[in-house]
Amino acid sequence: MPREAPKPAKMALTLIALDRPTPDFAAVFTRNALPGAPIVIGRRRLGEPALGAILVNNKISNVCAPGGIEAAERICAETARLLGFKAGEILPSSTGVIGWGLPVEAMLQALPAAVAALEGGSILPAAEGIVTTDLFPKVRRATVGGGSLVGIAKGAGMIEPNLATMLVYLLTDLAVPRAELRAMLSRAMETSFNAISVDGDTSTSDTVVLLSSGRAPCPDRAAFETALATLCRDLAEDVVRNGEGVRHVIRVTVRQAADAGFARALGKAIVNAPLFKCAVAGNDPNVGRLVQAVGKYVGAQAPGADLSRLRLSLGGVEIFSDGVFQLNPEKEQALAAHLRAAELYASAPKDGVFAPPVDYPPHERCVEVEVDLGCGTAIATVLGGDLTHEYVSENADYRS
Amino acid sequence: MPREAPKPAKMALTLIALDRPTPDFAAVFTRNALPGAPIVIGRRRLGEPALGAILVNNKISNVCAPGGIEAAERICAETARLLGFKAGEILPSSTGVIGWGLPVEAMLQALPAAVAALEGGSILPAAEGIVTTDLFPKVRRATVGGGSLVGIAKGAGMIEPNLATMLVYLLTDLAVPRAELRAMLSRAMETSFNAISVDGDTSTSDTVVLLSSGRAPCPDRAAFETALATLCRDLAEDVVRNGEGVRHVIRVTVRQAADAGFARALGKAIVNAPLFKCAVAGNDPNVGRLVQAVGKYVGAQAPGADLSRLRLSLGGVEIFSDGVFQLNPEKEQALAAHLRAAELYASAPKDGVFAPPVDYPPHERCVEVEVDLGCGTAIATVLGGDLTHEYVSENADYRS
Repeated sequence: MPREAPKPAKMALTLIALDRPTPDFAAVFTRNALPGAPIVIGRRRLGEPALGAILVNNKISNVCAPGGIEAAERICAETARLLGFKAGEILPSSTGVIGWGLPVEAMLQALPAAVAALEGGSILPAAEGIVTTDLFPKVRRATVGGGSLVGIAKGAGMIEPNLATMLVYLLTDLAVPRAELRAMLSRAMETSFNAISVDGDTSTSDTVVLLSSGRAPCPDRAAFETALATLCRDLAEDVVRNGEGVRHVIRVTVRQAADAGFARALGKAIVNAPLFKCAVAGNDPNVGRLVQAVGKYVGAQAPGADLSRLRLSLGGVEIFSDGVFQLNPEKEQALAAHLRAAELYASAPKDGVFAPPVDYPPHERCVEVEVDLGCGTAIATVLGGDLTHEYVSENADYRS
Repeated sequence: MPREAPKPAKMALTLIALDRPTPDFAAVFTRNALPGAPIVIGRRRLGEPALGAILVNNKISNVCAPGGIEAAERICAETARLLGFKAGEILPSSTGVIGWGLPVEAMLQALPAAVAALEGGSILPAAEGIVTTDLFPKVRRATVGGGSLVGIAKGAGMIEPNLATMLVYLLTDLAVPRAELRAMLSRAMETSFNAISVDGDTSTSDTVVLLSSGRAPCPDRAAFETALATLCRDLAEDVVRNGEGVRHVIRVTVRQAADAGFARALGKAIVNAPLFKCAVAGNDPNVGRLVQAVGKYVGAQAPGADLSRLRLSLGGVEIFSDGVFQLNPEKEQALAAHLRAAELYASAPKDGVFAPPVDYPPHERCVEVEVDLGCGTAIATVLGGDLTHEYVSENADYRS
């Protein structure tokens, strides 16, 4: 799909608003050191007494554009006026091209229609409104006691160069106070959005927000936290399965590590290793590339570490132990079959362009990699994708 | 070029031998924590009194294969017998598929022909003999006083999954004692082979060896070290310009950094950022992706660092300063023209496969990125390549 230069006329505004602002909200933002204006403002909002609405635009991400913060605040103020809220109760969110300024006047003119379009029945219109290069809207829902938790996400990668960024909005009617809500969201991040990578890049705009309207009592906080963690994990997997050019989702589980941080970082190093990613794309059980990725990370980050008890498996088939490969022709066939079974679609160019021929993932299978370090009790699971012609077509074949 | 499964009949053996073993040699090896058998043996050889020859094979890299060290030592012993040297005076070097064992008997049978083929006139046959996925042999030569220094390299990336690995052999007749030779090689690495990246992967077999026959006096050690550093830098650039699928060489210079290590690591983060690499491949001056890469690295490695004095330029055109982008339509045109001028060849599939249509780089131009951190005096230059359909075709389209 050839991309067009950003045009205000094409921009979609999506408004997510509560009936009244809530003191109970949580948000986490990108760690990129050159964040977008909405991130700078969002960090300020964490200190506000309450949050009432989120205004999302696509096409332009408002990152390091001259006057970007003032532009976003002006739009927040007008949104607040239309909703009867305060300006500090509106969280701005932007996704799209980095480096362009927001078309403020056009956005101000479009705001009344966005407010008029607010509806209470379904989150789906919002999930559809925020997508850009996404193939499908991502919605997950859980019920906990007498209340529920719903989340939507957009993003086809940890970053999006052009028209995407990972944005996640989580809404619940369950009453959980601000401090506890923020601690729970922080913990849920570690095993969900902080454990995925499509291309190893980190957006300047990544945002996860959780709002509690407090309408339903929440006597079982542990059940709520479990539901929150599961919902985040499911949405994170949706983001990877819909990642740019992803034809195989790769799930790496690192066991018996000295600590969970090292386990997760090693898992990320594997799903970010371009040659292993290419092998997976080609359904090629080139396990040498997997060993290379493990050895590269350990050699660079923990030189001298003892790898004598290292065990690796792919699709449940042991491929490395006792310091040497454990391969034979039957295993190679089983490995290739595992890779083929996890493929989401076959790669085929259409009119010279590689584009996904599916609009929804046909299955939920993963390429399963297990790494057993044999030197501790920590464990981590990381999700990533392969490296394909579809990724290159998406990101190199058209002028952004 | 469809690849064939490794067949001993197709393996090339290349022998580089001195007239007599020399005590003055230096070598550096990969930091990958799961190194190949030749690396394990090579590290032992550093303690030997002398080194006389290097035996290189392609097709199979002899990494973590059962009995791999014994196999390599057996071949070294036979090579030594044929040359009249000791087994410990032979350095084995292997490149190719990770995970397969060496065809020892076939290699032993081929050794007499390799010894008979030794010649003194030119290094070119050796440079040609060790190539695999390389497009062209890489030879560089320098004269220093009454002697000379010659180097050859193979490798189409920091790593090669299939049939390549970075192997570099440097030969000189200039007499430089072992300890000084090793210190000079170590220093030369930092600004050459440790400052390049094709795909961010680190081979299990990377090797750089320097042999001094000692036949010519070397009164000017400083001149020798300068020549060594220049020759290594030139060979390193050759490796990138010949990198798998590389259609643009990217040169990143990071200035005014707090220390050179940080500057080099930031430069590598930029040349390894897949979305920026894709933009370069598409001659697309998507400078937002460059800012993302800088912000990701600084945010992850130096959170809280002051980027207020950050200045970025591409092709000599300033694109970022004072915390915001400095762009206009004229600059965008200049940036696109700079990218097009640095392209080595246009991408076009032939029979559905993307392969380089050139057998030698048509020019030596680079995409020039300058990053000025404004917080110190250190500087580093890093070379890398773009991310292209040719890279994916090379590494995903065929069974390895």
